[in-house]
Amino acid sequence: MGTMGFDDAARALVETGRRLDFRGWAPATGGNYSARLDDGSIALTVSGRHKGRLTPADIMRVALDGTPLTPGKPSAETALHLAIYRLFPEANGVLHGHSPEAVGLSRAYPQAREWVFRGHEMLKIYPGIDTHEAQARLPIVDNSQDMAVIEAAVSPALLAPGAIPAYLIRSHGLYSWGASVAEAEHVLEATEWLIAAELAEIGFRNGAAR
Amino acid sequence: MGTMGFDDAARALVETGRRLDFRGWAPATGGNYSARLDDGSIALTVSGRHKGRLTPADIMRVALDGTPLTPGKPSAETALHLAIYRLFPEANGVLHGHSPEAVGLSRAYPQAREWVFRGHEMLKIYPGIDTHEAQARLPIVDNSQDMAVIEAAVSPALLAPGAIPAYLIRSHGLYSWGASVAEAEHVLEATEWLIAAELAEIGFRNGAAR
Amino acid sequence: MGTMGFDDAARALVETGRRLDFRGWAPATGGNYSARLDDGSIALTVSGRHKGRLTPADIMRVALDGTPLTPGKPSAETALHLAIYRLFPEANGVLHGHSPEAVGLSRAYPQAREWVFRGHEMLKIYPGIDTHEAQARLPIVDNSQDMAVIEAAVSPALLAPGAIPAYLIRSHGLYSWGASVAEAEHVLEATEWLIAAELAEIGFRNGAAR
Amino acid sequence: MGTMGFDDAARALVETGRRLDFRGWAPATGGNYSARLDDGSIALTVSGRHKGRLTPADIMRVALDGTPLTPGKPSAETALHLAIYRLFPEANGVLHGHSPEAVGLSRAYPQAREWVFRGHEMLKIYPGIDTHEAQARLPIVDNSQDMAVIEAAVSPALLAPGAIPAYLIRSHGLYSWGASVAEAEHVLEATEWLIAAELAEIGFRNGAAR
Repeated sequence: MGTMGFDDAARALVETGRRLDFRGWAPATGGNYSARLDDGSIALTVSGRHKGRLTPADIMRVALDGTPLTPGKPSAETALHLAIYRLFPEANGVLHGHSPEAVGLSRAYPQAREWVFRGHEMLKIYPGIDTHEAQARLPIVDNSQDMAVIEAAVSPALLAPGAIPAYLIRSHGLYSWGASVAEAEHVLEATEWLIAAELAEIGFRNGAAR
Repeated sequence: MGTMGFDDAARALVETGRRLDFRGWAPATGGNYSARLDDGSIALTVSGRHKGRLTPADIMRVALDGTPLTPGKPSAETALHLAIYRLFPEANGVLHGHSPEAVGLSRAYPQAREWVFRGHEMLKIYPGIDTHEAQARLPIVDNSQDMAVIEAAVSPALLAPGAIPAYLIRSHGLYSWGASVAEAEHVLEATEWLIAAELAEIGFRNGAAR
Repeated sequence: MGTMGFDDAARALVETGRRLDFRGWAPATGGNYSARLDDGSIALTVSGRHKGRLTPADIMRVALDGTPLTPGKPSAETALHLAIYRLFPEANGVLHGHSPEAVGLSRAYPQAREWVFRGHEMLKIYPGIDTHEAQARLPIVDNSQDMAVIEAAVSPALLAPGAIPAYLIRSHGLYSWGASVAEAEHVLEATEWLIAAELAEIGFRNGAAR
Repeated sequence: MGTMGFDDAARALVETGRRLDFRGWAPATGGNYSARLDDGSIALTVSGRHKGRLTPADIMRVALDGTPLTPGKPSAETALHLAIYRLFPEANGVLHGHSPEAVGLSRAYPQAREWVFRGHEMLKIYPGIDTHEAQARLPIVDNSQDMAVIEAAVSPALLAPGAIPAYLIRSHGLYSWGASVAEAEHVLEATEWLIAAELAEIGFRNGAAR
């Protein structure tokens, strides 16, 4: 937990990419992953590579203000990673994945500003929730090619009391973060799992009287 | 089959975690798995680790009354594992997994006290069933943060004649057990498979006249 | 293609089990697989083992009349494998798998005696079909614990002109065969794929006007 | 990126087959994959092999006019690969996969001539699209056993302004291409992902008011 040296961070991001690809959340060159390093800079996946087949050479370093510290083209979405690191000093890992289910949900409710998970044991994976008798509000923000627009739209929800460390960009994908890359992955997995469980719930409800 | 030494049990639980994670039934740090050891104590996965990436160091030992015998923080749900070992002297392995489908089912029928599987060949995996012309009743119990409440609510169903070695906690996940960790995994796989088959059945029924 | 020696057959059946388990078609101890050997006897998976974790020691030999030629408990369904080898001298591999989708289909249409696939390019995987403008009739037979009843019920359909080398036992699973274990696996994969494609078709049809 | 020598191309096609099979897009012997070589000839998977278990020996060479340059039986669909290489000099890799979802979509809308993806961030994977506020038109063409008929039917759509490097043959499967085998795979993955996301969207819409 916490910050890492570059080599450990690179290894962690490479392995995370393999696992997200295995789940089907890293199609084509989609997704980007980052980690806060011991020196306060950020290790980040470069743009345009398949995230399921990264090597440590595909991880670059940027300063917290976005200045590249190593060669390589940072992703356009670097700004969203950095915004999270600046908003949340305790965040040391940020993941952005693409699942068909999360995107399908965000499109099925095109006006929704959030999705509220209720009554799931799995909610306890989110920091500060210790019972299933809770609500977890996943903010949903409209997509934009201007990262500043997304950041401005979502920041209030992220800073609201009881906010969970994740949000969903409509027709785009999920962001998650945590005190380590591993914790960010737990949040991502749990949130995708909750979405999948509610899709299965709808399927069973369609089975009606039995 | 039967009890094991600690090293064999730890290996079995680690491998079981890999397989359940592969199926998508071990998101984040969810799930816990245990085995009864030759000396009557219980080997158990520690809390807060990802169950798909366990090592033997993530397995601890507790006495049947819950007293920790090795360092480590046992899961809050240890009590449910121990309750099964006490109720069923023939149980030597207990697994608790989280699938989106089982949880979706339990939420789609929020008043249901059980789900009855009928007419499946797969029912024969349950002890004492030797024909598909049988019914298997999967008890469903409401979730609680008080393990004693869950235990009290589910015990009568588990002891009913013809009960199967599994139950479902609503919005939470499935428990299964057997004469070995392997048998508990067979029960878990079969029960999840039955739920998936019935979800597919609903999907095909929606295809209506053809 | 064709018959094999025991060692090659055992290896092929072990690997087939891994692949079917990967797909989710070998839950618990479900499924059994066989190959015709050079000497006319049959290599067959033993009963009660998980088919995704077989070793060559889990493969036994039986004569075409069912007499065990090596120690081990042959599956009750051995009779259905042998019936296929007797009906079809060109069959050298027989596979029996369990997918949630095939079983869901067979239960959604409880009176159906067959399922007809129409217009799929994938039909060309079946022997004797060289265009998508064809129909492939998958016989569906009710389950029974008496293998002779299943055999008697399904044999006429299997011998009908244009029959495909597969059939579905309701609430139970799929049988497939071919001139080799590999060909039987191709038929199984293609048939399961067709069923999955038609389930996805129903899903998209529910999306209605767009 | 670009053309390759035969050995590199063979390796790339073998690995691509493993990944497409992992996703369930290469059932039985379905699918065929090709790469343009440095000398202008085409490396191509042979017919009748399982694409998830290819070896470099299963890759043959043909000239751009279809003349075989090495022993082996080229797929009947070789003509469709070659048509793409002739239409698009910048295409150096062509993939043809079979997913249940793409085929299900094409059958659910039997009169559709195209499927239009709108508003997805994932659209940016297609060349020339740099915003989600775009439309990507996936041509759908009826299946035929005469490759010239398919080619004639689909070519106008492929050459239309803003066409994406992919098309769908109804009840059959998806073609994709790119400046390299890797790029063709990115297009295939992204297109299948888009289809899966829209199927999930339909699923969530069926959950209605909540």
